[in-house]
Amino acid sequence: MTPTLPPNLPLPLSDATFVLVLVLLLLSPLAIAGVALINTGLGRSRSAAQSLLGNLAIVAVAIVVFALVGATFAGTLGGAGHSIHLAGKPWNWLGAGPFFLGGLSSASSQAQLELLFEMLAVALAALIPWGSGADRVRLTAGCAVAAVLAAIVFPLLAHWAWGVGWLAQLGVNFSLGAGFLDPAGAATIHVLGGLSALAVVWIAGPRRGKFPQGGFATAMPGHNAVYILFGCLLALVGWLAFNVAGAVLWLHAPLSALPGTAVNTLLSASGAVAATFTVTRVRFGKPDASLCANGWLAGLVASSASAAVVFPGAAILIGLIAGVLTPLLVEVLELAVSIDDPTGAITAHAAGGLWGLIAAGAFAPGAGQLLAQLVGVATLLGLVLPLLYLLFWLLNRAVPLRVDPDGERIGMDLHELGGGAYPEFVIHRDDSYR
Amino acid sequence: MTPTLPPNLPLPLSDATFVLVLVLLLLSPLAIAGVALINTGLGRSRSAAQSLLGNLAIVAVAIVVFALVGATFAGTLGGAGHSIHLAGKPWNWLGAGPFFLGGLSSASSQAQLELLFEMLAVALAALIPWGSGADRVRLTAGCAVAAVLAAIVFPLLAHWAWGVGWLAQLGVNFSLGAGFLDPAGAATIHVLGGLSALAVVWIAGPRRGKFPQGGFATAMPGHNAVYILFGCLLALVGWLAFNVAGAVLWLHAPLSALPGTAVNTLLSASGAVAATFTVTRVRFGKPDASLCANGWLAGLVASSASAAVVFPGAAILIGLIAGVLTPLLVEVLELAVSIDDPTGAITAHAAGGLWGLIAAGAFAPGAGQLLAQLVGVATLLGLVLPLLYLLFWLLNRAVPLRVDPDGERIGMDLHELGGGAYPEFVIHRDDSYR
Amino acid sequence: MTPTLPPNLPLPLSDATFVLVLVLLLLSPLAIAGVALINTGLGRSRSAAQSLLGNLAIVAVAIVVFALVGATFAGTLGGAGHSIHLAGKPWNWLGAGPFFLGGLSSASSQAQLELLFEMLAVALAALIPWGSGADRVRLTAGCAVAAVLAAIVFPLLAHWAWGVGWLAQLGVNFSLGAGFLDPAGAATIHVLGGLSALAVVWIAGPRRGKFPQGGFATAMPGHNAVYILFGCLLALVGWLAFNVAGAVLWLHAPLSALPGTAVNTLLSASGAVAATFTVTRVRFGKPDASLCANGWLAGLVASSASAAVVFPGAAILIGLIAGVLTPLLVEVLELAVSIDDPTGAITAHAAGGLWGLIAAGAFAPGAGQLLAQLVGVATLLGLVLPLLYLLFWLLNRAVPLRVDPDGERIGMDLHELGGGAYPEFVIHRDDSYR
Repeated sequence: MTPTLPPNLPLPLSDATFVLVLVLLLLSPLAIAGVALINTGLGRSRSAAQSLLGNLAIVAVAIVVFALVGATFAGTLGGAGHSIHLAGKPWNWLGAGPFFLGGLSSASSQAQLELLFEMLAVALAALIPWGSGADRVRLTAGCAVAAVLAAIVFPLLAHWAWGVGWLAQLGVNFSLGAGFLDPAGAATIHVLGGLSALAVVWIAGPRRGKFPQGGFATAMPGHNAVYILFGCLLALVGWLAFNVAGAVLWLHAPLSALPGTAVNTLLSASGAVAATFTVTRVRFGKPDASLCANGWLAGLVASSASAAVVFPGAAILIGLIAGVLTPLLVEVLELAVSIDDPTGAITAHAAGGLWGLIAAGAFAPGAGQLLAQLVGVATLLGLVLPLLYLLFWLLNRAVPLRVDPDGERIGMDLHELGGGAYPEFVIHRDDSYR
Repeated sequence: MTPTLPPNLPLPLSDATFVLVLVLLLLSPLAIAGVALINTGLGRSRSAAQSLLGNLAIVAVAIVVFALVGATFAGTLGGAGHSIHLAGKPWNWLGAGPFFLGGLSSASSQAQLELLFEMLAVALAALIPWGSGADRVRLTAGCAVAAVLAAIVFPLLAHWAWGVGWLAQLGVNFSLGAGFLDPAGAATIHVLGGLSALAVVWIAGPRRGKFPQGGFATAMPGHNAVYILFGCLLALVGWLAFNVAGAVLWLHAPLSALPGTAVNTLLSASGAVAATFTVTRVRFGKPDASLCANGWLAGLVASSASAAVVFPGAAILIGLIAGVLTPLLVEVLELAVSIDDPTGAITAHAAGGLWGLIAAGAFAPGAGQLLAQLVGVATLLGLVLPLLYLLFWLLNRAVPLRVDPDGERIGMDLHELGGGAYPEFVIHRDDSYR
Repeated sequence: MTPTLPPNLPLPLSDATFVLVLVLLLLSPLAIAGVALINTGLGRSRSAAQSLLGNLAIVAVAIVVFALVGATFAGTLGGAGHSIHLAGKPWNWLGAGPFFLGGLSSASSQAQLELLFEMLAVALAALIPWGSGADRVRLTAGCAVAAVLAAIVFPLLAHWAWGVGWLAQLGVNFSLGAGFLDPAGAATIHVLGGLSALAVVWIAGPRRGKFPQGGFATAMPGHNAVYILFGCLLALVGWLAFNVAGAVLWLHAPLSALPGTAVNTLLSASGAVAATFTVTRVRFGKPDASLCANGWLAGLVASSASAAVVFPGAAILIGLIAGVLTPLLVEVLELAVSIDDPTGAITAHAAGGLWGLIAAGAFAPGAGQLLAQLVGVATLLGLVLPLLYLLFWLLNRAVPLRVDPDGERIGMDLHELGGGAYPEFVIHRDDSYR
């Protein structure tokens, strides 16, 4: 299971391999459906319709904007892209694809599938900040955030990590292992989504009443634990699909390596939820359902970087560590940094993804791969996060992210849609309505 | 992406292609699960258990009746079928298959997969009128409607459009392009289901209190927006499966054309929901979650006719138009024609499907294909709709569609099942209970 | 469709067949997600979060323990296993696999896929007793039950029925047809899970108030019919995946037999729910939604033994009989034997599976196969059930299965998690809280 060098030119796929990847990609929207349900369940009942309608709208915006603009910059259907030369090496930083998916049907089968992967990946990535902005970020702003991700940041990152970009070529140019490896979107989907979530909640601020002056942070439990935990089980299928499809597309893994990738995915998620269950039980006396959901997701996210390149023993260890870190980091973010992230996406997606990327390097033979992974991590934290903050800060000037205080008080459903998700059910009204 | 002529004789499928279609068909019941959830969410809480139990029972009835009777008339496992001669041409109007799936295991792989596609398609089609009859159509009547569709109307249409029937042979006999094209059931599933919904609600009448005398139509919002919108995301996977599998089975599309079909499906749905979101926001000041769900479905339904035969630019345009038409048509049906269609299925499935069928012809090269599609549309509206109305009118004599007024007042769950879907939750009681 | 003799040595799989099975296995967790939702819906609202968190934790424990311990005893990646000699024949009773999935990546493609099948199968099996213990079995105890199943009982059974164990070799050694056939886990997943449920509820006892002294059994309807019935539709996809994948892995069915397996699965489930609907309607005047869900599952479970080896006519008959037996057996267990099984899993999974195993033998040509199946059934009832009872009785000494009475009164959510699944919804409080 040594990571293999991703060749610069796509290989011709056998029909069986083509069929495998195509079916898995058609299955992968279950990750989208699962994450959407988790997003909604972790918000409040008075925002549930707005939350899920936002998930649907954001998927639509991400797909359309990526088709119209983003795919050109990702360069998946195109040629060499744009390079600058520094230190005697080419740094390919921007793709150059055709306009509006031109040439899709005549592209190589590898390139067609890569494009489909990216289109579904950007839709998933764009959902992540929406969950963290629950109960306060406006529909229009959520769609605008998705548009920015799909037009600019995701294409850059996809070109760098999955295409012929500079991160992927760290191996060729600087002998760092096989270059930066992100077989199933740990960086391109999850760290991107999690860092976007961080930037969004930073700019939008916490929910009203979350951090009362001079008091402790208020617990605001998700309004439906069934949506959250069922969403986790549904998401598993989507992750299995992405992880196995990505191993074929970006690692050129042979068929015989793929059951192992699936087994590792199961082991990482299982190890992670077991660890979070145990840690929260020890710390709080009772296990915490929301944090267990975050742990499960963190394990899945970490597996998106590592499942295709490690042995089962490492997969379970990676999951265990992800599951131990999750409740600690959620607590640090909430209590020490006063960040209000209702879905825990910053921890599950950003931290889980970064940990997976490092672990994939650490468990690979030779030090070069770990160094390549660390360059990728540094790029995400040092370049992508500031870029996201800048873009969303500018966006917030034009399209304010946050609803006005009256809207927040009556709930996003009533304010933005004129009606609630559960018009016939009797809901407890709490102080925050007043 | 020129539509190719469907040959009259099934081709031998390669193993990889066989595997692709088989797996997609096993995945396609997610469309059934998604539509069932949408049906239930758009009804009222006091009918939710009856609604979902009906969905399950209808799927069962449709599958069993199709296996016992319908498959014989569809003729998928059989030979030439029955023709009459008119204007010097054969008009093949009825299939002649073996009794109760005889010879299934020895049929060609193409025929076996076609039969499985049809069995799942008829189950999906039969769910559509059930949703529109929500809160007033009886379980037994819903099952009887499903039986009529599975025994008679669906097999006729499947034979005409997918088999060796006269619609499919408009190309061979009258040089109308490749004959009527319905690659993934826009006609055979969705227009059939949507027109059945029209006939059912026409005969059953509106819900009590929907159109008060001398007043405006009463808004009766669905009882759970999460079911509706999550159902949309789940249905997406089922549609991707049907659209890609259908492109192989009925267009004999090569593998390399299939990622494009998936991309087009995503673009049509995305364009449609974006359009409905915008239109409802402009018209009403706020976007409407239910109508957005209808728009998303209308985009998916339109893609079932068109995704396999158009370019991405056309796919998004087809979606946009479907999404603009949806809220307008829902309003016309409700306010101008006083039709009470709780799920909007007449618009999403019938109108969305008709639009997709026309669009598939309009974007094909040459005028013949458009003409073939228009002949199909005319058949659906001029022949199939009256036939459905007649059959359901007769059925209504034997098995009354509508519950008695007392039953409607207390709710379908209490009346038909003796208990509600949510026995522990407190529900608002409104005037319509009295 | 004569059952074919499973060869002792795995055959090399073609790439297309490998891809088929791999994708189906990645899809099969939808059975897990569906059963988890059914489990939760059939419990009470005050246990819903504990129930679903338990499902997630149990999946994790089953997967990790099977990887660490169980897979060694199942012997899937290993060699000949351990045999004793009796009556001049070898009785292979225990596998001998490598430690912690060693050699997974270098194993044959058949063995790799078998291991993945087993890992997902044990997760599904372990969910079944959890559902039956709803509202009273503790999280830790549920995880311990899962660990026992994954470490000991499932591996034994998988080795006997699927591996080179003595049940599978009844054909070779005693000329009983093709040996005990369990193509998709009717025995190994469902009877095992259902008998575990029986042992668990036997030991844990009924819910408080279920069988009041000197009175009739109290009806305790599931708290959400939508979860139950939607779970059934979702589970269908998982069952289709398991049934078709199992037919390839354990019957070496050719591709051309697989659409028939899928059709039979659909017919068994459909026939079963139609029968239960009719029977409950005739008996009680109204159809019963929960029992219909049990009937649907019983039909699916029976198909897991039979779908790959019978004709469509038999498949529907098998479903009908499963659907007729389900409500009768649920009633017998509850009223005659005073067993409190909230999810009906003993009936749906154990009885449905046993019936399917017998039916698969009865519809096969020759008496030998029926005899082989009956030996398997006798083993399950005479050997596996006592073993399960013993193991869980011992477990109950160390980790008490049942919550203390106070915990049961306030509800598992509040007691074990400190908060409910639906914190914002108003719930009816009934007498059992006092």
